[in-house]
Amino acid sequence: MSNSNPAYQLLASQLQDGGFDIENIKTKLKQQHIETPSWGYGNSGTRFRVFPWPGAARTTKEKLADAAMVHQLTGVAPSVALHIPWDKVEDWDDLKKYAAAIGIKIGAINPNVFQDEVYKFGSICHADPAVRKRAIVHILECVEIMKITGSRDLSLWFADGTNYAGQDSIRGRKHRMQEALAEIYHALPPNTRMLIEYKFFEPAFYHTDLADWGIAYAAALKLGPQAQVLVDTGHHAPGTNIEHIVAILLDEGRLGGFHFNNRKYADDDLIVGSVNPYELFLIFNELVAAAVSKEKVPSNCAKNVAYMIDQSHNIEPKIEAMVQSVINCQVALAKALLVNRAKLAERQAAGDVLGAHRELNAAYETDVRPLLAQVREEMGLPSDPIAALQARRYEEKIAQERGSASAEGGGFPGA
Amino acid sequence: MSNSNPAYQLLASQLQDGGFDIENIKTKLKQQHIETPSWGYGNSGTRFRVFPWPGAARTTKEKLADAAMVHQLTGVAPSVALHIPWDKVEDWDDLKKYAAAIGIKIGAINPNVFQDEVYKFGSICHADPAVRKRAIVHILECVEIMKITGSRDLSLWFADGTNYAGQDSIRGRKHRMQEALAEIYHALPPNTRMLIEYKFFEPAFYHTDLADWGIAYAAALKLGPQAQVLVDTGHHAPGTNIEHIVAILLDEGRLGGFHFNNRKYADDDLIVGSVNPYELFLIFNELVAAAVSKEKVPSNCAKNVAYMIDQSHNIEPKIEAMVQSVINCQVALAKALLVNRAKLAERQAAGDVLGAHRELNAAYETDVRPLLAQVREEMGLPSDPIAALQARRYEEKIAQERGSASAEGGGFPGA
Amino acid sequence: MSNSNPAYQLLASQLQDGGFDIENIKTKLKQQHIETPSWGYGNSGTRFRVFPWPGAARTTKEKLADAAMVHQLTGVAPSVALHIPWDKVEDWDDLKKYAAAIGIKIGAINPNVFQDEVYKFGSICHADPAVRKRAIVHILECVEIMKITGSRDLSLWFADGTNYAGQDSIRGRKHRMQEALAEIYHALPPNTRMLIEYKFFEPAFYHTDLADWGIAYAAALKLGPQAQVLVDTGHHAPGTNIEHIVAILLDEGRLGGFHFNNRKYADDDLIVGSVNPYELFLIFNELVAAAVSKEKVPSNCAKNVAYMIDQSHNIEPKIEAMVQSVINCQVALAKALLVNRAKLAERQAAGDVLGAHRELNAAYETDVRPLLAQVREEMGLPSDPIAALQARRYEEKIAQERGSASAEGGGFPGA
Amino acid sequence: MSNSNPAYQLLASQLQDGGFDIENIKTKLKQQHIETPSWGYGNSGTRFRVFPWPGAARTTKEKLADAAMVHQLTGVAPSVALHIPWDKVEDWDDLKKYAAAIGIKIGAINPNVFQDEVYKFGSICHADPAVRKRAIVHILECVEIMKITGSRDLSLWFADGTNYAGQDSIRGRKHRMQEALAEIYHALPPNTRMLIEYKFFEPAFYHTDLADWGIAYAAALKLGPQAQVLVDTGHHAPGTNIEHIVAILLDEGRLGGFHFNNRKYADDDLIVGSVNPYELFLIFNELVAAAVSKEKVPSNCAKNVAYMIDQSHNIEPKIEAMVQSVINCQVALAKALLVNRAKLAERQAAGDVLGAHRELNAAYETDVRPLLAQVREEMGLPSDPIAALQARRYEEKIAQERGSASAEGGGFPGA
Repeated sequence: MSNSNPAYQLLASQLQDGGFDIENIKTKLKQQHIETPSWGYGNSGTRFRVFPWPGAARTTKEKLADAAMVHQLTGVAPSVALHIPWDKVEDWDDLKKYAAAIGIKIGAINPNVFQDEVYKFGSICHADPAVRKRAIVHILECVEIMKITGSRDLSLWFADGTNYAGQDSIRGRKHRMQEALAEIYHALPPNTRMLIEYKFFEPAFYHTDLADWGIAYAAALKLGPQAQVLVDTGHHAPGTNIEHIVAILLDEGRLGGFHFNNRKYADDDLIVGSVNPYELFLIFNELVAAAVSKEKVPSNCAKNVAYMIDQSHNIEPKIEAMVQSVINCQVALAKALLVNRAKLAERQAAGDVLGAHRELNAAYETDVRPLLAQVREEMGLPSDPIAALQARRYEEKIAQERGSASAEGGGFPGA
Repeated sequence: MSNSNPAYQLLASQLQDGGFDIENIKTKLKQQHIETPSWGYGNSGTRFRVFPWPGAARTTKEKLADAAMVHQLTGVAPSVALHIPWDKVEDWDDLKKYAAAIGIKIGAINPNVFQDEVYKFGSICHADPAVRKRAIVHILECVEIMKITGSRDLSLWFADGTNYAGQDSIRGRKHRMQEALAEIYHALPPNTRMLIEYKFFEPAFYHTDLADWGIAYAAALKLGPQAQVLVDTGHHAPGTNIEHIVAILLDEGRLGGFHFNNRKYADDDLIVGSVNPYELFLIFNELVAAAVSKEKVPSNCAKNVAYMIDQSHNIEPKIEAMVQSVINCQVALAKALLVNRAKLAERQAAGDVLGAHRELNAAYETDVRPLLAQVREEMGLPSDPIAALQARRYEEKIAQERGSASAEGGGFPGA
Repeated sequence: MSNSNPAYQLLASQLQDGGFDIENIKTKLKQQHIETPSWGYGNSGTRFRVFPWPGAARTTKEKLADAAMVHQLTGVAPSVALHIPWDKVEDWDDLKKYAAAIGIKIGAINPNVFQDEVYKFGSICHADPAVRKRAIVHILECVEIMKITGSRDLSLWFADGTNYAGQDSIRGRKHRMQEALAEIYHALPPNTRMLIEYKFFEPAFYHTDLADWGIAYAAALKLGPQAQVLVDTGHHAPGTNIEHIVAILLDEGRLGGFHFNNRKYADDDLIVGSVNPYELFLIFNELVAAAVSKEKVPSNCAKNVAYMIDQSHNIEPKIEAMVQSVINCQVALAKALLVNRAKLAERQAAGDVLGAHRELNAAYETDVRPLLAQVREEMGLPSDPIAALQARRYEEKIAQERGSASAEGGGFPGA
Repeated sequence: MSNSNPAYQLLASQLQDGGFDIENIKTKLKQQHIETPSWGYGNSGTRFRVFPWPGAARTTKEKLADAAMVHQLTGVAPSVALHIPWDKVEDWDDLKKYAAAIGIKIGAINPNVFQDEVYKFGSICHADPAVRKRAIVHILECVEIMKITGSRDLSLWFADGTNYAGQDSIRGRKHRMQEALAEIYHALPPNTRMLIEYKFFEPAFYHTDLADWGIAYAAALKLGPQAQVLVDTGHHAPGTNIEHIVAILLDEGRLGGFHFNNRKYADDDLIVGSVNPYELFLIFNELVAAAVSKEKVPSNCAKNVAYMIDQSHNIEPKIEAMVQSVINCQVALAKALLVNRAKLAERQAAGDVLGAHRELNAAYETDVRPLLAQVREEMGLPSDPIAALQARRYEEKIAQERGSASAEGGGFPGA
């Protein structure tokens, strides 16, 4: 392993002087695992327009191929989440073999109970038991798929909600939801988890049945230990302190995972860390803090958090956007690992408001690009994944192969 | 004219006791004019799903027919805004005759410079002069259509903006926008207006070139008196006091019109007055106050405000939703007309904070449904437009005629 | 009992035609109970300025006298919440006798753990165990006061939080909080409750230890059934659907009570119902719905909700503002009682989005002022409490008696 | 000049390779000018509590002494803004001499028209002409003080607004405001400026007369070229893109200056750059871009922007907080100067969304601490101003001298 980069050498010597174990930090960076979503490789857009992207994946295998490319370039994106029925295939064994062959695993399974005609007024919260049953049956089918694919996580997002006050009974819908979740929960295989995602609004505009972490948490508590909360970083009210929620859920042993993305306004679904990189750092800081904490955090929780990307690349090249997203998560983790936790705790205990804040920020202000380049080199990867992507002309190649008329693969309306 | 309704009689006598001229109030209610949008009769949806509505209009004539039905039922919706190219027809004379035959006029013309492939990074703010030219040419074509249709208002909304910091030069885009608007402005026929709409965000998520009323106002000032600002009630940051903006623009003589709808979160595009009816009342209160004010408000402005609905009925029956929208605007205007302005001014001058607030709210708390029923009867209209719509089974009829496969008419992706 | 008011007679006959039991509705309105806060009668202000109000109460007895006046005028404000140490007296028996003599009861006890010098960085979450101990001791003293005053509710608000990322350990503070709450909980007498209030932000600006209902709920769950959540209507992120939270907490049996006020921006602490009266109606609608629901709502919860006002009257006459607040709560309850729940449920079951919405709004649009006037007359009260207040010249009298130099009674800085 | 720091040497060589003129960058950093506010050295707090700070300045001279210390440590804070009447002195010549002796200048003059009893309902927008007159007279007195102190900027913030709909006429208040501003404008000496500050809300909670940049801009346009808009970074609605407003105002030649601070929720008045450092970088990026732009930006505007801090240090040591604020502005400017504008423009022109974004972010990710240390050394200043402050024990010394009972100097209620 060479570490001939002078910037890295300087950083390494500074860290060593600061008492950090640089090898341990690099090991943790090499073990990072970011799951990319199959639907991030197909077309997507806003309600106003889906701009088809030349090269957008048309089939599940093409999505897997794109995900594999992201993993080849970054080394830390070894799995891909599937969306059913968008990614449903006839021959699952064939798909698994294909995935293995290209060096990728199948990750979380995401049912879709928001696009069928019958789901106009909701799925598992719908007033009509027949609609609820249909949604449950679909999700149970996804549980079966989990068994085949070896997926650990059933990732549940419901578009359920209402658009007008009075449209339906809020508590009535809550009861229907809990009943449906219980039926699904009981079908979960051992060692798997149900991740319950919440969302502030959209597509429902008066109330969303699972509107905040508290509702998801209360539901999970009643279901049992395999039920966990999924934090989508774009699903909060303006001003919400997301790292606080992360800390709470970690401490309660109920943080199941993330859907990473970034937003300035609503659920903008931009590249994670692109709008507010400091916030992403603070989220990773809570995760690292919990992992090394002496204060009890239910240990399986901290270890098992699923780090997944869920974005909507409307105007960006899709592979490049995904590689950038993975890099942004690496930067945030790297900085979080550079926090001197002993000194931070000392400043906190002393009531040194700004001293503690500065101790945290010393890590944030550090340029970790040389460190990550070194980590990549040690992993046998290109030190600059974006440059490598461009050098390989992968996006040009798939554009030629797949063509820009490939709108059908998206799953989203208009895609 | 009968006024046998005891509730109306009671209200009329109370108003008379309070010094109100009830005939004048009714006259103003009869003169109210709410323009409905052609695109409100086709399918629309969210980025997640467009639920096709059985009966959704497939052609421009069908949209006009639906708008005519709303006018037949309410008597105050005599015009319909068109969206080009969605509503472009071969034979405009034929369309005008058809409109006249069914008792409706063509209102504002709305160009579309956000759905063509080339507009991925903007239209009149695009870095490429060829794209800007194309957008300008399209808008100039719309100006030609205005001449044929006799439309007074060119209603401009631009989806232009960026998704990532650094993506483009904010000031560079501003200069391109002003240049393009100037070219369009000079093509306007006399006695017509350019309405410049602003929007906080969406579909752009980092910056929107026309993000707030101030930017639209600054642009309009440079263009000239025919350039006015259009207030879409859903296009503001959380907490924004919209009636304040309305008052400012009225006072500056630059309030061109409204796109009415309502929102709780983002640009939810729900039925106007359904989320916050008090806010709608306060907006109409400023409009009525300006109309009767002794303080100088540039008079053509107050008189010429265009009241237009712009909503997205994703789960509601479209005609019913439009009728309800018109009714909600009637309720808000009726209440605003019941404010005792002399007493209000007296309480304000006295520094009587709560007395003034109560004087305003006395109008808001009044049940104006009997008054509106009376107005409708005097206009020879059904006193309950919703009941009349249901009695006529219009929505059932068009569902049968047009069928639920009629997705193509929407114009929106997936529709 | 006369009901000579023609407006009331008309309304009563309409309601009777609609199948409503008007006597039952009036009974519920007569049983309404709104608790006013002692601190609402002293001076308060913003961080920029406290404008002293001539007549502001200087002593606990003066605050009780003012509260008694509000009750005399409205008939539904029979109790007053106390704030310790602001309202601490030497002779509690004397205070109880005084209260009884003027027809008022002592309600919730509110400890103050945010104004002492030592609480600069928090109280029960403070890093220093001595500070936490001091806060606990103060709250335990309040529990003792509850025993003397016969108060049912210990109402806890903590200003605890941090201003800068890294300032303190979020999870460390959470553990300290839970430990302290447990110690306090164990000291609660039977048949009393601990109400845990949450707040989005202010005075802490990075994170607030009890930031949302989920955190308060999770804490309450661990404590036991006497721990309940208190919803202050001004303590949420922009756009939050408060009635949804109310419905969830009712359904979970953990809604302990309200601190009523209204806000447009932050924790503005304006008069309840003055910014968004429709929202207040929707909150009461959930409460009424839960009370009459066939779906199980833990019954003690629905019955025992404490309705308390917590506002900051910075520029308004304080007694008038309080009377207006009580009236606004009456209006909201009256309208919620006029919802035809059978028809509403029918429309909801039918998936009639706008029909259901209209059914709810039919109640909201009703002018309930005649009904409330009738209720007041039947209770032997002035039909217009504001007019009665003005006629009695109570505010003028206390201004003369107490003088405008009476700033010391407020408890807030500058007051 | 030594530049023995290896981190700086590495950065310098990297920048040189990248085509940057490092000497020019350092020159610009040495010329940076951040004005600190006199009121930042006295006590301040929230409406709940002002925690007195031992050492808080009690007199104008003490405030100047503190500001001089900040300048001694940082070298880029040579002026201090005054607040009248808080900082009013008998002998202005004496104060000027004192300031000169300690190496500091007097900067902007800030009138106070929000704390007198008469301003309860506003100052220059008040319904009573006598109150307006009083406010104008006070501000004209401040104009006289400007002449004595040689201040260039009259910095105007008005707390004017209303708390309840209907409380006063929005347009009536607008007219009064414009009239008053015109009277003040005409009294301005040549070569001075009136900076008009806007604020979203607080202390007014229904409407603020100067609520957004558009209102301030429209007022400034009518007054003339000496009237400019002041951007307080904490005075916007949630989600507002502040750098967009900065770009617009620069482009219109109306950006007068900044009140720097940072916020997560409302006008939190935290240390600038502490909540969202990326946003501060983006603001400085627009300023640097405008300064070097070939597109016409009215040049006096870009050159004359006043960079002022306006924060409320409630729990932090005040001198340390101010030094940290200055450092954060240095970091933001340094990073903005490292943007490769030619490459950025090239990526923008090419429609390379993520390439352009990365080009911008390459500057942001750079660790500029070594560069700033070098700049400080070259200026003969301590390379770490915070460490130097602590070494000098200045805060300990003033705590002893001034004592913690020194609450009277704050100017804020409770202070």
